[in-house]
Amino acid sequence: MSDDPSTSRPVRPVNSAVNSTDWRRYKEQLRAWKNARLRKQLDAEQVETSEQETTTTASKSTSQPIKGRSYTLSIALPASILRNAQSNELRTYLAGQIGRAACVFNIDEIIVFNDDETVEEVDNNPFSASEQLIRLLEYLECPQYLRKQFFPRQKLLEYAGLLNPLDAPHHLRTNEYWLYREGVTLPLRPADGKGSWVDVGLYETKVQIDKRLQQGLRVTVRRTDITPEEYFQTKELSNDTQQTNKKKRIPGEIVSPSTPRLESAFYWGYQVRKAETIRTVVEDCPFDDGDNHPAKYDLVIGTSERGTSYDKITEFPRFRHALIVFGGLQGLEKAFAQEEDSMTAEQLFHFYLNTCPQQGSRTIRTEEAILITLSCLRDKLLSAVIN
Amino acid sequence: MSDDPSTSRPVRPVNSAVNSTDWRRYKEQLRAWKNARLRKQLDAEQVETSEQETTTTASKSTSQPIKGRSYTLSIALPASILRNAQSNELRTYLAGQIGRAACVFNIDEIIVFNDDETVEEVDNNPFSASEQLIRLLEYLECPQYLRKQFFPRQKLLEYAGLLNPLDAPHHLRTNEYWLYREGVTLPLRPADGKGSWVDVGLYETKVQIDKRLQQGLRVTVRRTDITPEEYFQTKELSNDTQQTNKKKRIPGEIVSPSTPRLESAFYWGYQVRKAETIRTVVEDCPFDDGDNHPAKYDLVIGTSERGTSYDKITEFPRFRHALIVFGGLQGLEKAFAQEEDSMTAEQLFHFYLNTCPQQGSRTIRTEEAILITLSCLRDKLLSAVIN
Ligand SMILES: C[S@@+](CC[C@H](N)C(=O)[O-])C[C@H]1O[C@@H](n2cnc3c(N)ncnc32)[C@H](O)[C@@H]1O
Ligand SMILES: C[S@@+](CC[C@H](N)C(=O)[O-])C[C@H]1O[C@@H](n2cnc3c(N)ncnc32)[C@H](O)[C@@H]1O
Repeated sequence: MSDDPSTSRPVRPVNSAVNSTDWRRYKEQLRAWKNARLRKQLDAEQVETSEQETTTTASKSTSQPIKGRSYTLSIALPASILRNAQSNELRTYLAGQIGRAACVFNIDEIIVFNDDETVEEVDNNPFSASEQLIRLLEYLECPQYLRKQFFPRQKLLEYAGLLNPLDAPHHLRTNEYWLYREGVTLPLRPADGKGSWVDVGLYETKVQIDKRLQQGLRVTVRRTDITPEEYFQTKELSNDTQQTNKKKRIPGEIVSPSTPRLESAFYWGYQVRKAETIRTVVEDCPFDDGDNHPAKYDLVIGTSERGTSYDKITEFPRFRHALIVFGGLQGLEKAFAQEEDSMTAEQLFHFYLNTCPQQGSRTIRTEEAILITLSCLRDKLLSAVIN
Repeated sequence: MSDDPSTSRPVRPVNSAVNSTDWRRYKEQLRAWKNARLRKQLDAEQVETSEQETTTTASKSTSQPIKGRSYTLSIALPASILRNAQSNELRTYLAGQIGRAACVFNIDEIIVFNDDETVEEVDNNPFSASEQLIRLLEYLECPQYLRKQFFPRQKLLEYAGLLNPLDAPHHLRTNEYWLYREGVTLPLRPADGKGSWVDVGLYETKVQIDKRLQQGLRVTVRRTDITPEEYFQTKELSNDTQQTNKKKRIPGEIVSPSTPRLESAFYWGYQVRKAETIRTVVEDCPFDDGDNHPAKYDLVIGTSERGTSYDKITEFPRFRHALIVFGGLQGLEKAFAQEEDSMTAEQLFHFYLNTCPQQGSRTIRTEEAILITLSCLRDKLLSAVIN
């Protein structure tokens, strides 16, 4: 990977560190920036490849072509819900409930909107509710074997032991047969002409990729000793997975974190995004399908007990990128009232739905509403996807 | 209320108390027994009234007849799930999640089946997981103003402050206009020829009922200074509810806890039942619709990731009393394997459903599965009710 400047690249953070916690924060930001830049580049490569290869996959193999998934589902929720939990333990647990709900329903993106400006001192650093929620959601999404590296001991994660694990498909166990894995680039010096080594959580077994990358980056790798077709063909049969995972070196290449989904329809966890306003929740869609389809949510649903009863909707218009928005203690109407530019729910949402008509409790909590909504909209959403 | 023995009455507990905690337990059991006996009697009266009066309500009023609800929804789950929570705080919180899920979906009955025999010492008394879960669910269901009376300070309820409130319709606030209320009979001596006084959580205002009852019983009262028709006609208009609730004495009558549902379609909380086996979960249905319809669940649904995908079901057969059964950490198959008489899921369940096809997490937790299942089955269930 070269260091070419690119107009659309994320902004590199400035080092104004004066003490050690500032320094740690700076390093974290720098790493996040490097990862974002790498991701952007890989995403662009992925889009190009998908556009060129639409039919190639099918022609390479005589069996069923592998079908990827290009549509996405996103959810958005306010940071303030974290403040309604009664203790730090329950705050952590609540973040866990949200991460799990997202994972159970194959949600690709969680957007946390910043409706609570108050900050809390943690480890002598001010942390807003959204920073806390985002940190917890990212921690939960990270495979266990990478957590030590990317989430050093910190007060915010004091009760992380209480989080119920996601048990997501990209949290692979050591004895599982695999095609893609999450990893971290290692400080090992590769031989001349060879790419970097990546730790993918398989003890002695390391992946050697095709590129030279800086150490300490979180990467998604695809192994190249087998093709995706071979993977799907042998997956069910393969008894010697333990064996495969005992090789010292597996050749691989680095791909975008969205490649497992786009190429093989794997659910590969969620990405987390912070938004300052409801408007940017909706406008800053990160899913770029190439030149013909600029990044845009084409189905945006707001939720409220005062919305239209969902069973009145017989079908949704077809979509590529759906976004479902949830409110906090005071609902979405309140969130709109707080926005600076006057905007209405009608302008922003294609649908405003009550997903639990005749609810027996006067209020449904946001974390409950997420499971309820995703469950009852599931089949209607899936019948409307463009893939 | 007379003390006539009745063949079907619950068994009165025997006092074998030797120390003070045993004594408290005996008193609790005695009260539960008395309440159960009262309830049975009132239920029988309610069934009789409903059968006689099917058309009377309509003829009394010129407006829309009030439509009650005779169908019920029950859920069953294993006690063992409590043991999977990591701390006493989280155990309490989990029970709260279940109570809330039930309330949000208007569930009339929660059955806890006893799949975990281990007991834990609490306050020098052995408590099984099912006793703990049941106690917490009952506590949550009890209106706040009655809790002190029916749930004296105890170790099991140490973290009850962490429970998110049900906010159910029978948890009425003091300034709300009402037709039915939950209360407790008072030790006040009524005047000659008058019935007992009931505390319904309205400070100075007490309800005087038509019968004389022992003190300390939990009762449901219906006020008799207005008819149900008048209640529904004036509910929206009434501005002087505060005024109404400031009378010193409101005349009322004692009704079955199922009367608010049967007569006016109010959701009136859930009752909790303990079952020793999966067979008795299904066989001991408490909902008796009178002579023509012996108590029986006529739609029984088991849930599992290995069940039939729920979207394959276009409609359910019509039912009066539906029961949905959930498993624990090891699923329902395991629960069947543990039963003494060999019984299969096919014999017990009319449907065995996967309510979250293509789940993105390898396992869905029971508390999540309850919300997910009730949400996606909701409209199919409601279109199949016999009312
Ligand atoms: C605690 S509720 C908000 C209640 C708030 N008092 C109001 O009136 O909107 C939090 C969020 O859960 C979701 N929610 C609650 N009940 C819902 C329902 N019946 N249908 C859809 N979403 C609901 C909405 O996103 C809502 O903003
Ligand atoms: C932790 S799960 C049980 C998992 C267990 N290993 C099994 O294979 O059944 C606990 C309960 O949640 C419910 N559940 C989990 N996934 C479900 C699904 N996809 N559809 C319906 N119910 C599900 C079932 O009642 C299950 O018994």
